[in-house]
Amino acid sequence: MKNYVVPVLLMSAMGGSGAALADLPGDVDAYRAQHESEIVDQFAAFVSQKSVAANPEGVAATAHYLEGELKARGFEVKEFTGAPGVAPAVFGYLKVPKAKRTVVYYAHYDGQPVTPSQWSSDPFTPTLRAGASLKDESIDWHQHTPPFDPEWRLYGRATGDDKATIQAFLIAFDALKSLKRSPSVNVKVLWEGEEEAGSTHLATYLREHRDILKTDLWLIGDGPVHQSRKPQVYFGARGVIGVDVTLYGPNHALHDGHYGNWVPNPATEAANLIAAMRDDEGRILIPGFYDDVRAVTETEQLALNAMPPVDADLKREFGLGRTEGGQSWLTSLMRPALNVRGIRSGQVGDAAANAIPVDAEVSIDFRLVPNETPDRVRDLFEGFLKSKGYTLSSHPPDAEARLAHPKIAYLKWEEGYPALRSDMSSPAAKAVIAAANSGARQSVLVAPSLGGSVPLYMFDQLYHVPIVGIPIANHDDNQHAANENLRLKNLWDGIDTYASLLAELNW
Amino acid sequence: MKNYVVPVLLMSAMGGSGAALADLPGDVDAYRAQHESEIVDQFAAFVSQKSVAANPEGVAATAHYLEGELKARGFEVKEFTGAPGVAPAVFGYLKVPKAKRTVVYYAHYDGQPVTPSQWSSDPFTPTLRAGASLKDESIDWHQHTPPFDPEWRLYGRATGDDKATIQAFLIAFDALKSLKRSPSVNVKVLWEGEEEAGSTHLATYLREHRDILKTDLWLIGDGPVHQSRKPQVYFGARGVIGVDVTLYGPNHALHDGHYGNWVPNPATEAANLIAAMRDDEGRILIPGFYDDVRAVTETEQLALNAMPPVDADLKREFGLGRTEGGQSWLTSLMRPALNVRGIRSGQVGDAAANAIPVDAEVSIDFRLVPNETPDRVRDLFEGFLKSKGYTLSSHPPDAEARLAHPKIAYLKWEEGYPALRSDMSSPAAKAVIAAANSGARQSVLVAPSLGGSVPLYMFDQLYHVPIVGIPIANHDDNQHAANENLRLKNLWDGIDTYASLLAELNW
Repeated sequence: MKNYVVPVLLMSAMGGSGAALADLPGDVDAYRAQHESEIVDQFAAFVSQKSVAANPEGVAATAHYLEGELKARGFEVKEFTGAPGVAPAVFGYLKVPKAKRTVVYYAHYDGQPVTPSQWSSDPFTPTLRAGASLKDESIDWHQHTPPFDPEWRLYGRATGDDKATIQAFLIAFDALKSLKRSPSVNVKVLWEGEEEAGSTHLATYLREHRDILKTDLWLIGDGPVHQSRKPQVYFGARGVIGVDVTLYGPNHALHDGHYGNWVPNPATEAANLIAAMRDDEGRILIPGFYDDVRAVTETEQLALNAMPPVDADLKREFGLGRTEGGQSWLTSLMRPALNVRGIRSGQVGDAAANAIPVDAEVSIDFRLVPNETPDRVRDLFEGFLKSKGYTLSSHPPDAEARLAHPKIAYLKWEEGYPALRSDMSSPAAKAVIAAANSGARQSVLVAPSLGGSVPLYMFDQLYHVPIVGIPIANHDDNQHAANENLRLKNLWDGIDTYASLLAELNW
Repeated sequence: MKNYVVPVLLMSAMGGSGAALADLPGDVDAYRAQHESEIVDQFAAFVSQKSVAANPEGVAATAHYLEGELKARGFEVKEFTGAPGVAPAVFGYLKVPKAKRTVVYYAHYDGQPVTPSQWSSDPFTPTLRAGASLKDESIDWHQHTPPFDPEWRLYGRATGDDKATIQAFLIAFDALKSLKRSPSVNVKVLWEGEEEAGSTHLATYLREHRDILKTDLWLIGDGPVHQSRKPQVYFGARGVIGVDVTLYGPNHALHDGHYGNWVPNPATEAANLIAAMRDDEGRILIPGFYDDVRAVTETEQLALNAMPPVDADLKREFGLGRTEGGQSWLTSLMRPALNVRGIRSGQVGDAAANAIPVDAEVSIDFRLVPNETPDRVRDLFEGFLKSKGYTLSSHPPDAEARLAHPKIAYLKWEEGYPALRSDMSSPAAKAVIAAANSGARQSVLVAPSLGGSVPLYMFDQLYHVPIVGIPIANHDDNQHAANENLRLKNLWDGIDTYASLLAELNW
């Protein structure tokens, strides 16, 4: 495999105390090799916990389960709860004698909603298969002698997003214990149970429990590793804000022969609106939209330059005949995006009637970069619609309102949050990179930002300390879809990484 | 009610032989008033026949039923069939001693498909209600003494489209018989059973049975009366051609945070394509699209000028805050239209995921005017897509094809046909207007064209005789939708009109 140049800035972080403990990953690997069957058992037990928003009892039971895991490892444990029925967050604390730094490991233990009919096996019956093919028979790992094939994958909801990072943390802890190694810093965990439902109470927890959450660094166990399968850390994420827009036509579907050309067609109005906002290359045409976007810094650019090029592989993997925007994949994620998540108007295919539809609904999300704010994006979007003649309504307009206004749009906004890019050159950042390099026995990739959104801004706003993402999951884990899975190699790598972070982090 | 000026051209058609028989409508009304209950019985019996394409036995039984009705009235009857299982067309012939002219009455006895769950009462259990409100209780007309309230409506599939014209024809015939009046011309009928399924075999029947269908005039019993509820005749219809377009994104839905901005979004591509083809005023932007459109003639313009203005009423009825195109409703129907019948891509509302959709499907129909042809429209549309960089495919492209082409569009064309506008000033045309005026006891409205499509071109191409449409149905009859209905007043008026056409048509 090709070697990639690590930027000078980041190389300097690779010395540190890691060098003195260079045998740790080998020892952790040996521990893991002896315990692969039990590790998969433990992970399967965790994945079988039904922690999805639709099942509040399952979420509460999962929190309870995790508290037991932490207590068994010597942690003090506390549950943060917003209100009765709200998914609790699990807080754990392990004070380490003589440690001068404190780190909080954040992850979420809840998963995306499931539609079992779309799954090849039950989402909460963890199923091991030989690889990414859903046709593969399930494997009973108890019938196999380790080492297991690292390409095996465990299927189940939340395997990748985020149960893997929590499990890697727990196993890393066990490995260190068996190696008689102590953490190098005070360790806190905050494992949230409602991230996939919008992290509704996270800001409150972060505010109300600021004293016991006091930390020098946040480590975020969310997101995928790089598409090249190389381990990575990241220092930022895009922000997000979503909106559903409904435009209106006649009050009932009308024969488009008798009335087409005279009765406004909401499907074409929606198309014209989208086309006026975004071209085929992803460029956002809303006036002023890029005004708040700060340029990519030299440090960020160096880090981007050091990432392995995967564009050709991704193009093939996704079956694409072209890409948008004329930039590399990673560079394109440093820009804001206007994504159309869906359009619905009238009927298509065999169900299409020769009719003018009664309405058109468009679902959009904006991905934000520094220094955009959701409020500003909302203002720009609404101003743009008004400039196109739309009267805006925050509720479905009644017949009178529709008659009174030539064009009316019902907007349903989601809560949004801004992007964050944390400082990549702080001492803590350098220490994290060094420990991750040590755990991976290679230079990990260093991403200035994920393309996806993680509410890192909350941690930044309230704690003003460095924030670094330490993901584990394979990029092709089907997170947010059916048949979510974790590749065993990613779990093994994650255990190595977390063990080094626990034992070697030092600044 | 306001009086509308009838153009001079059309006034000249109002003398004729109708004057000598000025009492006929009164006599027909008297007959109908005595038989309202039986007439509704007969209409209900006809509507209860399950003549929809999904029910071939129902269609065949309906043809058989109609043959019985014709035989009972002295017609020679013949069934035209394309192939086993194909819906038959019913042909009937009544030779009238000394008649010098022959007229064929065309209508279709099949109805649009039904989705019973969307209906307030079973589509084949004819239900009488007090008006257009679906909340009204059903009325048992046997419990009422005529005259019935003419605003009552009979609900059932095909009531308006086209069973009403067939029923009016049959009742008019009965009325004339009781009045001892003979038809003034030889009468033929051609009642088709697969119009709503595309009239697949109509052209074949017209060609193969040209000898027995030989005629001096086609009268078309399809379409609605004018929106003002005034009776009308029409001399043309727009043509139509439909196409379903599918555009492609990634081969599986992708997280739009991680890939949005780089992986092409088919929803926005569809929007950009539609916007490039059609503006918010209905103007078609495909280069050369209007080249084949012939201007509205002076005769057509005079007829349009004589139509009562209903734009304000329609705007209110349909709940519109604006109209497209800046022209009156009727004038706008003299232009071609690009109608988007539907768009579907990804998900909207609560079902929306932060994902780039895998494809986008757009259903379009074009309404054509003279002298456009479906072939030419197809060429223009395909040329336009190619100019936008699309490779066109007549089947869903495979993975290899999607990889090989930056943009690929799968086009599924429907069969189309051109528009027709028949000569409004032929002797036959004038005679039809005169008879219709006599039956309606007022000047009927004379429309150069319907906005909707009827394959009049077929009759024109093969017979080269005048073609006039004689509709009956109320415009608000929900044809092509659930809860189709016919307003009794429209049936009563239709009986008057058909009686005059049968007895008084003369040129």
